[in-house]
Amino acid sequence: MLTLYYASGTCALASLIALEESGLAFETRKLSFRDGEQRSPDYLKINPKGRVPALVTDRGVLTETPAILGFIAESAPAAKLAPLGDAFEMARLQSFNSYLCSTVHVNHAHRPRGSRWADEPAALEAMKAKVPQNMADCFALIEETMFKGPWVMGETYSLADPYLFVMTDWLPADGVDPARFAKVSDHHARMLQRPAVQRALAFDRG
Amino acid sequence: MLTLYYASGTCALASLIALEESGLAFETRKLSFRDGEQRSPDYLKINPKGRVPALVTDRGVLTETPAILGFIAESAPAAKLAPLGDAFEMARLQSFNSYLCSTVHVNHAHRPRGSRWADEPAALEAMKAKVPQNMADCFALIEETMFKGPWVMGETYSLADPYLFVMTDWLPADGVDPARFAKVSDHHARMLQRPAVQRALAFDRG
Repeated sequence: MLTLYYASGTCALASLIALEESGLAFETRKLSFRDGEQRSPDYLKINPKGRVPALVTDRGVLTETPAILGFIAESAPAAKLAPLGDAFEMARLQSFNSYLCSTVHVNHAHRPRGSRWADEPAALEAMKAKVPQNMADCFALIEETMFKGPWVMGETYSLADPYLFVMTDWLPADGVDPARFAKVSDHHARMLQRPAVQRALAFDRG
Repeated sequence: MLTLYYASGTCALASLIALEESGLAFETRKLSFRDGEQRSPDYLKINPKGRVPALVTDRGVLTETPAILGFIAESAPAAKLAPLGDAFEMARLQSFNSYLCSTVHVNHAHRPRGSRWADEPAALEAMKAKVPQNMADCFALIEETMFKGPWVMGETYSLADPYLFVMTDWLPADGVDPARFAKVSDHHARMLQRPAVQRALAFDRG
């Protein structure tokens, strides 16, 4: 059995969608960030980083979205959620997901979580001011150079798609109009039609 | 043939060490960041992100260190640079490398490259001030909860090792004494004894 530790409004939504797509049996545990449950002693035993997602498996705990997505794809080969067995295409998928975790998510985080990188209120405001441009630059690069269409990797849906969906979902709050990016906006709308996405969003908002 | 686009003093050193370990045939192209060659029109055609590393393969260009490391491991199975075929262990490797790219490298970057996230000089100084503590926190977590020893993943060397080596190498400039982390320091010293690391460092400094 797999158990996903989750918090609403976080990037853990990508892993939840992936599990919903996979057909694998899984449970969820929802943490309240408002109550600081991600820093509780019990949760820190599961994930010492104090973050979500964390996926508890029979062999141990996995953290970091790109790793969890890769594990889900490998564990459910029948669901065809990644180009398994093709080293180059798998690396292309990992490259896209690495960009989301190391650049796009990080740029976003400078709005709600700037205190990770500076203490002074004026510095936090300076970081927030740059978030719309940084996020728009990232999505221009995705739209123009990375996104193949109709799915991220091309004709075939993969676990790059739920991860991009989550980042796109953050754009309005980050001060960027998603409509500036036609292919990405179309992708977001198409994702909303998938039953797995609808189930995951119902849980996120429940 | 593989071609690695490289710049001295960057995280591209991890990919160069990996190639040296792999036994694969490869070439290198060194860019001068001082001269801004990573923003030249010719290089932006190869990597629109204007960053290194970029690995040119027969099937296309790969970027992002975790993806490049994974591709090198899969392309050189005889070199045993990753737990190929074990989905959980591969995910554990990807989790470690994702943490380095999305958290450790990002924390480091707030010292030399804070202008990515804010414009005001005072904000850049505020970011720099927090780098030693953030890097020390990351390495405490690595030392205490992630590093198995003698190599990152345990008894077997993998492509988490060159990536950690590069991050450890940045600690003194980030204001952190590596000696605070006994296992990580020992790992760094052991890495320096590997011929592949010595060849890569000679190229980096050449």
